[in-house]
Amino acid sequence: MSGGHTLAAFDTELEALRTAIDRMGELVERQVGLALDSLAGLDAEIAGEVLKGDAEIDRLEMEVEAMTVRLIALRQPMAKDLREIVAALKIASNLERMGDFARSVAKRAVTLSTLPVAPPVASLVRMGRMVQVMIGDMRRAYIEQDADLAAAVRDCDGEVDAAYTALFREFLTYMMESPAQITGCTHLLFAAKSIERIGDHATNVAENVSFLVKGRLPSDERRKEDHSSYAVAPPPEGT
Amino acid sequence: MSGGHTLAAFDTELEALRTAIDRMGELVERQVGLALDSLAGLDAEIAGEVLKGDAEIDRLEMEVEAMTVRLIALRQPMAKDLREIVAALKIASNLERMGDFARSVAKRAVTLSTLPVAPPVASLVRMGRMVQVMIGDMRRAYIEQDADLAAAVRDCDGEVDAAYTALFREFLTYMMESPAQITGCTHLLFAAKSIERIGDHATNVAENVSFLVKGRLPSDERRKEDHSSYAVAPPPEGT
Repeated sequence: MSGGHTLAAFDTELEALRTAIDRMGELVERQVGLALDSLAGLDAEIAGEVLKGDAEIDRLEMEVEAMTVRLIALRQPMAKDLREIVAALKIASNLERMGDFARSVAKRAVTLSTLPVAPPVASLVRMGRMVQVMIGDMRRAYIEQDADLAAAVRDCDGEVDAAYTALFREFLTYMMESPAQITGCTHLLFAAKSIERIGDHATNVAENVSFLVKGRLPSDERRKEDHSSYAVAPPPEGT
Repeated sequence: MSGGHTLAAFDTELEALRTAIDRMGELVERQVGLALDSLAGLDAEIAGEVLKGDAEIDRLEMEVEAMTVRLIALRQPMAKDLREIVAALKIASNLERMGDFARSVAKRAVTLSTLPVAPPVASLVRMGRMVQVMIGDMRRAYIEQDADLAAAVRDCDGEVDAAYTALFREFLTYMMESPAQITGCTHLLFAAKSIERIGDHATNVAENVSFLVKGRLPSDERRKEDHSSYAVAPPPEGT
């Protein structure tokens, strides 16, 4: 990626940085998958695995940060190399956030598993699987420095946002129809928001990949389809 | 702060970086204040001001990023200066996120202002004012490099988290008692989460200030009082 660099040691360190980031991506993909499994099966045991697994992602983020600071201080990189290092910092920070959101989803799954009535998880899990695909593509785009794949990740995010807004309305209506589902649907709404945010961060990573490959950010305005902040449901009959 | 540096130009640039960050903090404090006003008064006009005001914070964050990259590339800073520059990047990123959350709160206020029944905003606004005080202290801690004040910001975050968890339960119960409030309370719950997150980011900034002043992060584990992920309310009578 950093063609023409003369210092072999520098390239080795840059490679180690990329490896650490890819390892973070691998863990995030796994954590998100498990968090969705815990939601789909209302399985507190799988959720517990997610809660434990997050620490390693946090540790790797700190490692990436230390590596970048060392690289800058010792190697004093310029131009494209410096750009890659700054991008690495940002990508690591986004991956760390994705891990946090997977953790949030798992916490909600624990609570949902204890409720007397099973909440309607199916459409949320479906939305989550869309995001899981985005994460796989995001990882490949980073490793293969594939700007087209990075663009595809961005496009997918618009679909996730639209699915999230639809889900928000669905859950509101559901709560009005069955008050016994209010606690469950409220936690599902927050889990949905976390999953939507994971998609946003995957998109941020993809945009950083574009930036690295092309030297500029995508020029077209990012699609923003999350209108849930403005979503309302009709009041229930008889009120 | 960077005693003993010989390059006057470098100090001037570092000073410009600090000024840009303080300007971001000033705008964030204003935006959060206005977002709370829009919530308290269910005032879509004030909310509109918040929505417009966020762009300037985003612009400043990009400016800070460009400044840090330029500082690193041209001045090749070491040790404490490099640490300050990396901290500046992180602080700017936290401030930008706080601006985003103020925007989220304002969006919810717009929706709440259109509902047929006025939602119960009072206790949420009270929690928001606690966070507003944290932001003021966070700014002073940064400007005056005051580690004690930074520690106080951290302590306050625990109180905000506890208030948020209490609010979560309160809103759940409220929805069960009055289904006509479901839409309103759902948006209030999300606004509460955004405000709680603003407090988290203020705490992150305070921790970065501690790090700058003392050269290490606070050693005691950060208090975590947000237990809302696990909050449930009793099912309504008659179900």
